[in-house]
Formats: sequence, structure tokens, C-alpha cells
Amino acid sequence: MNRRFAIIGHLAPSSGKLNLNDLAGDSGRMDVLIRAVNATLFVSHGIRREADITLHLCGGPGPDRRIWFNGETLAGVRPDERSIGGQIKAILKRPVPPIDVFDEVTQGIFDTGGDLSNTLASWEREGVTMYVLDAGGNDFESVENAQKVGFILSDHLAYDEKEKELLDSYPKISLGTNWLQGHACITIVHHQLDSR
Amino acid sequence: MNRRFAIIGHLAPSSGKLNLNDLAGDSGRMDVLIRAVNATLFVSHGIRREADITLHLCGGPGPDRRIWFNGETLAGVRPDERSIGGQIKAILKRPVPPIDVFDEVTQGIFDTGGDLSNTLASWEREGVTMYVLDAGGNDFESVENAQKVGFILSDHLAYDEKEKELLDSYPKISLGTNWLQGHACITIVHHQLDSR
Repeated sequence: MNRRFAIIGHLAPSSGKLNLNDLAGDSGRMDVLIRAVNATLFVSHGIRREADITLHLCGGPGPDRRIWFNGETLAGVRPDERSIGGQIKAILKRPVPPIDVFDEVTQGIFDTGGDLSNTLASWEREGVTMYVLDAGGNDFESVENAQKVGFILSDHLAYDEKEKELLDSYPKISLGTNWLQGHACITIVHHQLDSR
Repeated sequence: MNRRFAIIGHLAPSSGKLNLNDLAGDSGRMDVLIRAVNATLFVSHGIRREADITLHLCGGPGPDRRIWFNGETLAGVRPDERSIGGQIKAILKRPVPPIDVFDEVTQGIFDTGGDLSNTLASWEREGVTMYVLDAGGNDFESVENAQKVGFILSDHLAYDEKEKELLDSYPKISLGTNWLQGHACITIVHHQLDSR
């Protein structure tokens, strides 16, 4: 089963400098997105080849950017925050590519423009069965055993009105009443699917 | 329910310098322990007051050290690896305290000597119901709803012979066939208990 994750970084910078020494402070909570990359892709001694994640950097300056980490081919990345952050830092120095033009910056890491609406459109085209992680949603049991499943989640902020509208038609899945960290949600999704 | 975690850092330094710029490289995989702290203590907008974790630093030089992060009183720590690593770095500069003398270095973070045998002895004295996370173990369902539960886990290395002997009498719990990262195991344990 192909497992896709999309996380929205409402304040995460889309261009410019990234301070690797203060990822949780002045970096638009890029640390939340970085941990989501770890949770999506790493097991103790390897990479989940069937998983990928798209980071949505919506904090400006300039146009939104998306970074796609594809487990199928990813190589040369370590699981710690600073290493993953270093890959993102290098990408933020580049001009944002046109929407849906995916530049492979290093093996398995792609840089493109666009926002959540573009990710949803791609997933639709590719036949991904999609779910939105949301505290008010249904039990995880309701997730289908589809060939391709995709999960959308937010960072430390709630979905904004525009996102709610975009996500309105997709089923909502809840992982419980606690508002967990984003990477924790991804870990639990993997575990639930692994356990089937 | 009081939830305790104990993680063994086989190569993690117990004294000396810690390079915050290379936590996954030349730091005895301190990054694995740091992520375990995050997973034990943080939800999206707060701290799990009912949880704590003891890091076991067994990589020398000098005697073993334990660092205890107690969610009940913890304050002033951010969830990113560098911030948690900074707390540990400061502690590694101190002389290792005598076994079971707990110096509160900053609010909710305690420094002491000793090893896994000392942690197990304390937990026994305090009436903690203990489980060992181990791929060959039983289903999580078998974990009792005790007032205090404790979970022991390893870092990126398997338990060594001495540890196996110490842990032999406690029930083993498996979270599936994948060898997950330590912090992922903690996240899943929390989720399983949260869901009850």
C-alpha cells in the first residue's frame, strides 16, 4: 500500500534563510514539518519505501512552495532534525519552481511551487483515496485498504477557512481527543496500517 | 495513569562534550534518546503531566549516568531536538552524581548516576507494573490498566546480554514486526493507552 502524507506549514518560510539553530523558534515551526518527514520515512534501520510526504510552505516571503520527500528513492538523509532541516535550508535558497514542475534537488527530494489545492488535484488524478486528519473525524477503522492512501494534516495551527473549504469533501479521520503533534499522528497512521 | 519510560542509550556519552550540530553522527545516537523525550512528554500544545522518561547513558567515558525528565513539573523546554539536546549537553559537563542522588538541574530535569538495574529497583519499590518493548513480545492488549505502568525500550541497538538477564522476568510487549524508531514506539504506547 502506497502511503502519502501532506502537511501544511502555515508559517513555515517558503524562501530565504533557515536558522538550523532555532528551528522551533524563529523558523515558522519548521521543526514540526521536519519531524513529520522523520515519522513518514524512517524506521529504525531503514526507509519506508512505500511512503512519501509533501511539505507545504505557506509562510512566505513570495509564492508558496512544496517540498516532496519520496521514500521510494530517497538516499543520503539522516533521521535527525538538523540533517533534514539542512536539506530544506538548501532548497529555500532556490527560486520557487513553477507549480507542478518538480526539480529533483537531491535523490528523492523534489522542489516545486503550488499549494494544497495542487497536491489534492495530483492525488485525485493519481487515484489516491484521501483522508483528512481532524479531531472531529471518524474512527481509523473506516480507512479503506486502498492501493494508494493519502492523509492531510496541519501543523501546530488549525486548518484555515480556505483549507477547510478545499478539504470539505474528503472524509475526516480522528486519532483521539488529544491534539497530538503532527509527527505523532503520522506514526500512529503507519502503525494502524502496519497492524492490518 | 502514570506512564513511565526508560530508554537505554548503549553508546550515548555519559560525560564530556555533546556536539549539537551532529547528534545523529558522532554523539552515540543521542538523537534517538532526544526524540524519545519529545515523544514521551509533548502533545501539540502542552506537556503530558502524567508521563516521565529516564535516559540511560551508557557510552562513557566514566560511570553511567541517568537523566530523568519528569512531565509533572517540567518547564521551559521546547520540543525540538536541539533544545532538548542543549539541556543534556549542560548536564554532561557536570560530575556524575552518586547513584540515586537526583540533582534537579532545571525544573523537572534530574541528573543521577546508576544504570538500568537502579531504575528497575526504583520502579519495583514504587509499585510500577513493568513491560519490556521487544519484537518477540505479546500484544499490547495484555498491558494492564495499572495505576503506574513502566515501559523499557532500547535505542537503535538490541538489548545486550546483561540487559536481557535484568529484563528476563518482565513481560514483553510487541508493537509489530517492523523495528520502529524508539520515539515511534513511545508514541504508539501513548496512543494505545489514550484510546482505552
